[in-house]
Amino acid sequence: MDASEKITVGIVGASGYGGVQLVRLLLEHPQIEIAYLGGNQSAGKKFAELYPYLGHRFHHTIEPIDVETIAERCQVVFLSLPNGVGYKLAPQLLEKGCQVLDLSADYRFNDIKSYTAAYNVERDDEETMATAVYGLPELYREQVKTATLVGCPGCYPTASLLAIAPLLKQGLILPETVIIDAKSGTSGGGRKSKVNLLLAEADNTLSAYGVAGHRHTPEIEQICSHLAGVDIRVQFTPHLVPMVRGMLSTVYANLRDPGLVRDDLLTIYNAFYRSSDFVKIVPNGVYPQTKWTTGTNLCYIGVEVDPRTDRVIVMSAIDNLMKGQAAQAVQCMNLMLGWEETVGLPKLAFYP
Amino acid sequence: MDASEKITVGIVGASGYGGVQLVRLLLEHPQIEIAYLGGNQSAGKKFAELYPYLGHRFHHTIEPIDVETIAERCQVVFLSLPNGVGYKLAPQLLEKGCQVLDLSADYRFNDIKSYTAAYNVERDDEETMATAVYGLPELYREQVKTATLVGCPGCYPTASLLAIAPLLKQGLILPETVIIDAKSGTSGGGRKSKVNLLLAEADNTLSAYGVAGHRHTPEIEQICSHLAGVDIRVQFTPHLVPMVRGMLSTVYANLRDPGLVRDDLLTIYNAFYRSSDFVKIVPNGVYPQTKWTTGTNLCYIGVEVDPRTDRVIVMSAIDNLMKGQAAQAVQCMNLMLGWEETVGLPKLAFYP
Amino acid sequence: MDASEKITVGIVGASGYGGVQLVRLLLEHPQIEIAYLGGNQSAGKKFAELYPYLGHRFHHTIEPIDVETIAERCQVVFLSLPNGVGYKLAPQLLEKGCQVLDLSADYRFNDIKSYTAAYNVERDDEETMATAVYGLPELYREQVKTATLVGCPGCYPTASLLAIAPLLKQGLILPETVIIDAKSGTSGGGRKSKVNLLLAEADNTLSAYGVAGHRHTPEIEQICSHLAGVDIRVQFTPHLVPMVRGMLSTVYANLRDPGLVRDDLLTIYNAFYRSSDFVKIVPNGVYPQTKWTTGTNLCYIGVEVDPRTDRVIVMSAIDNLMKGQAAQAVQCMNLMLGWEETVGLPKLAFYP
Amino acid sequence: MDASEKITVGIVGASGYGGVQLVRLLLEHPQIEIAYLGGNQSAGKKFAELYPYLGHRFHHTIEPIDVETIAERCQVVFLSLPNGVGYKLAPQLLEKGCQVLDLSADYRFNDIKSYTAAYNVERDDEETMATAVYGLPELYREQVKTATLVGCPGCYPTASLLAIAPLLKQGLILPETVIIDAKSGTSGGGRKSKVNLLLAEADNTLSAYGVAGHRHTPEIEQICSHLAGVDIRVQFTPHLVPMVRGMLSTVYANLRDPGLVRDDLLTIYNAFYRSSDFVKIVPNGVYPQTKWTTGTNLCYIGVEVDPRTDRVIVMSAIDNLMKGQAAQAVQCMNLMLGWEETVGLPKLAFYP
Repeated sequence: MDASEKITVGIVGASGYGGVQLVRLLLEHPQIEIAYLGGNQSAGKKFAELYPYLGHRFHHTIEPIDVETIAERCQVVFLSLPNGVGYKLAPQLLEKGCQVLDLSADYRFNDIKSYTAAYNVERDDEETMATAVYGLPELYREQVKTATLVGCPGCYPTASLLAIAPLLKQGLILPETVIIDAKSGTSGGGRKSKVNLLLAEADNTLSAYGVAGHRHTPEIEQICSHLAGVDIRVQFTPHLVPMVRGMLSTVYANLRDPGLVRDDLLTIYNAFYRSSDFVKIVPNGVYPQTKWTTGTNLCYIGVEVDPRTDRVIVMSAIDNLMKGQAAQAVQCMNLMLGWEETVGLPKLAFYP
Repeated sequence: MDASEKITVGIVGASGYGGVQLVRLLLEHPQIEIAYLGGNQSAGKKFAELYPYLGHRFHHTIEPIDVETIAERCQVVFLSLPNGVGYKLAPQLLEKGCQVLDLSADYRFNDIKSYTAAYNVERDDEETMATAVYGLPELYREQVKTATLVGCPGCYPTASLLAIAPLLKQGLILPETVIIDAKSGTSGGGRKSKVNLLLAEADNTLSAYGVAGHRHTPEIEQICSHLAGVDIRVQFTPHLVPMVRGMLSTVYANLRDPGLVRDDLLTIYNAFYRSSDFVKIVPNGVYPQTKWTTGTNLCYIGVEVDPRTDRVIVMSAIDNLMKGQAAQAVQCMNLMLGWEETVGLPKLAFYP
Repeated sequence: MDASEKITVGIVGASGYGGVQLVRLLLEHPQIEIAYLGGNQSAGKKFAELYPYLGHRFHHTIEPIDVETIAERCQVVFLSLPNGVGYKLAPQLLEKGCQVLDLSADYRFNDIKSYTAAYNVERDDEETMATAVYGLPELYREQVKTATLVGCPGCYPTASLLAIAPLLKQGLILPETVIIDAKSGTSGGGRKSKVNLLLAEADNTLSAYGVAGHRHTPEIEQICSHLAGVDIRVQFTPHLVPMVRGMLSTVYANLRDPGLVRDDLLTIYNAFYRSSDFVKIVPNGVYPQTKWTTGTNLCYIGVEVDPRTDRVIVMSAIDNLMKGQAAQAVQCMNLMLGWEETVGLPKLAFYP
Repeated sequence: MDASEKITVGIVGASGYGGVQLVRLLLEHPQIEIAYLGGNQSAGKKFAELYPYLGHRFHHTIEPIDVETIAERCQVVFLSLPNGVGYKLAPQLLEKGCQVLDLSADYRFNDIKSYTAAYNVERDDEETMATAVYGLPELYREQVKTATLVGCPGCYPTASLLAIAPLLKQGLILPETVIIDAKSGTSGGGRKSKVNLLLAEADNTLSAYGVAGHRHTPEIEQICSHLAGVDIRVQFTPHLVPMVRGMLSTVYANLRDPGLVRDDLLTIYNAFYRSSDFVKIVPNGVYPQTKWTTGTNLCYIGVEVDPRTDRVIVMSAIDNLMKGQAAQAVQCMNLMLGWEETVGLPKLAFYP
């Protein structure tokens, strides 16, 4: 395939961490050409001013956000914008024939009320919303393949749902007992100047936040309920960990059948993810480390059963900016374009 | 009180992190004189060879472990040794009139069977064991005051028990629902050359360990059961966090009475710890950070109720080497000697 | 001395890291009472809103900056403000009888031209400036004792000057060969939301900044020239290191007399700092670590001679927020008030 | 090219960080097949026991070190062994027709005396030594292409020599003024259980080590002298920085011609490295960060001139385990095999 055949892609909201991951991934994607970078605040700046390490390799300038221009130049558009912005662009881009992947929360809900309750944004694009597919390929691969609009999940739902999906799908646990204790590196907070994300503040420390009220909860519950076929409420507690990248979800639930042992569950998990190249079930007695995923689209999952308490404990590790954000979006794009889902995506970390 | 009246103290096993915290704390304790440092491996070495930063201030040499010498010189003895060693020394020291604080697991159990099951050490000093007091002053202050032998709890039980004690003591939760998701800095692993504790391995990463089988579980359960008056099994999952010091326990439990709200629990916690100078309940909407405790004997506790799930979530933060180890031992010593429990202990961290 | 006899102190610009160190130090200073906290941006806020860990202990509210109020309530005033602000307040406070310690660059220069060249601020308070003493007690102790206005040096000049002063004072090196390669934790950048100080940006990385043009250079040169009695130009390169606190200056210079060996220099350094309780010369073959100084007012200095190159290499470690900022200011205050310079200051770190 | 045509490669000493980088790189190298992993201590173990994250992808077992076996199976052999071991294997492997890349110091010297002085190992393989090429392709590309034995430089010499080579080669500086202040992440210390490399010890701190006597000094001097055509002594000071990967060398030297300005030097550097794909000169006013190189074979170089002191300051950043070790060895292998030097090597980092 020569360069002229490459698919043209645009990134709107390119200046953040999601944007720079997309740029970095797409630069080495064999079938993609970056045709447009948009951002109102940084418009006119060279992308390499924001990320000087790319200066020798990438010479694009950030342009003002203009739907006409984008649609003219790009077949596929990634929206990497704050919540409540993308939904104003997506319908127009779709109408002009673009395929759209939104990295915000705007298209993760199939129900306007839940979205509005969590994000406090009034909108009336129910029709567009109804066409959006939840961009977690391991759970919705077939739907993603035929989608023109994908709402890509964030890091917490990705890690948590991959950990718990086999249990819910197979009805192995008591749904009301699900507790998700999640831990994230600070890059999840974005490239925004917030005092609490300064190294001086966030290093050498650990704390929970958004306890009992984090807005990823309804998103997780929506998908859990869909998987289980019944309404589910989960306990979700995010923590901020002194590291740049990486997320670990430790998920607890009571087994419906206390006779199940660890090996049974490992078998079930391996089967569930058999055709998912990016999910790796670690063997007996090994627990996943977030570092194993750094810079890759991998998710490592470890499973343990406590026969004393009849609980299953599942641990899932991802790179919050990759499988938890940009790389998963590229995985979705690959599927939407009819390619292997693994094309152009890093499959193995460097250690240590 | 002049120097000649100071109480003489010995530290056996002084070369580890517990030892150096004790040395550091006791050096600035107004009523203590360090009279002996013991350690078989480091015997003959100046302490400052191991910790050069103390070189200008502390000139003691580590001596071979010899009970006669210790008892002759010291009124109080801290045993900062690996599990399964201290119980060979303690009875002799007690017999010679020393007061003993053991920092290992050897005297944390009131039941030889539980100890042996967890630590795989056969012993027959049931009598001595029966006299030991569990060195968590906030729960056993009066007993500590009159003890001659104290088994000081480690960091995980300290953080977890302080978080959950008010709930169990007042019967506010369903005991079988207790889940403790705990996170620790790597200094908890000691000054031992283990590959997994190298900065190159342990930085930029996060993982669980000892899932469903960590040996602090029976210790936590013993005290929980004692507090609740019924046998309790808890789910305890420790995690290793890329930071030197600090521990956070996030504890989940179902409320017996779903009508309780956060403010009720804050009132209960404040009352429970009213006379405990080192436990601070943080107000509504604030969650504790481990960094607040660094270098101090403080424990910060935050409480949240989720009315959607009828669960209480309690977060407790300590410095694992201080309130979780050496400083708490000094707090116990203060009580054993009839002093204010706060004497000579750091009460406020530096931030950031 | 009872409470009514305590000296009243005010802190203007209390919300930053300098401010919170001052609050923390003065809270435990036996002879001080904090009587005023000022800050225009945070006026009206409780200090504990900014630093919740102090909530149980410190209940002051930040007030608008008003000279009358300050002078009425405070005998001593710390100005912890951005460069170019303090010089507008200091003259008025002095006139009303306050003793003033300025933590910015405003009173570090004895020459308006140098100040203006470096900080681009036009001012005409030459008279006040002439009365200011450079607040590095190890070099200007006697002057500080009688000062009413002290310009406290920042972290880079403190670490660098303490490392090099004995060499310059004794004429042991060729002045034009001085190179200072300095490394700082990121808290030196202050509690400001700058993208490059985010943990996500500043962790796992290292770089120089301000090469060949950092504005601490003229300040260092001014004092170096004063010590040497001749005009000196130094090469100064600061680096940002992924840690919260701590600063290391590695200083290189060619020895005038190549016959000098390490032991000679250790003798000279020990003699030079004999009456300086906060400076510790480490013995042969040991090099200082920044961690040894964390939370203290200590400076550790190591010295090495390379007989192959006739160079001396001096390494000095401090806590940038303590000896490099707030604690050193308190040390100066102690001297100004006729007290021991060590009163109320931390003298030993916790390790690790 | 189908699999049967791939070049077979062996790694002796595979269990360390050098080994795992080689495995990781060669696994994704399109023209290589890993045919042998050797190590006496880990013989019999699956490689994935040492590095579980590779478990799903790499199934090799570590074998005892046996020259016959290696030579039979492998065309190219990497020796990733401690200093003083490889020189016993290399001659035999060469004799049997293997191409050998040694990652230790054993073949970095062209002079047995210098090697023995630095490493205290007596040996008499002068003949083999004489055939070895110094594996820094940017300086010795043509020699590497025809070599059968390459002594790969470590991280400090690589970063330092790339920074200074253009200056020495062109005679732009006074050779006796060269000072190299180098800073390294702790992974450079290897996967060895050393107390000072524990996270608890090495995090939150910074110090120099090996001052005035580090054994990389003679290696750097050998190449510097070769480049300059005269004997050169450099001042080299390594520092340990609290991060896993990354190295920054800050190099100081006095310009021979004080008229040179920064832009002149940028031109010279760009020309010097014009055909070196892995060296990137950053433009005016930008300084390299180690993070830009993480997981890649890149070296970023920044140049500054201080007209006040007539000094040039050069900063070079590399990943110490990649360009500073394993990836550079693969770059050499590519050249030895007649391929593009960039084949199979990561060319762009992920940020942040």
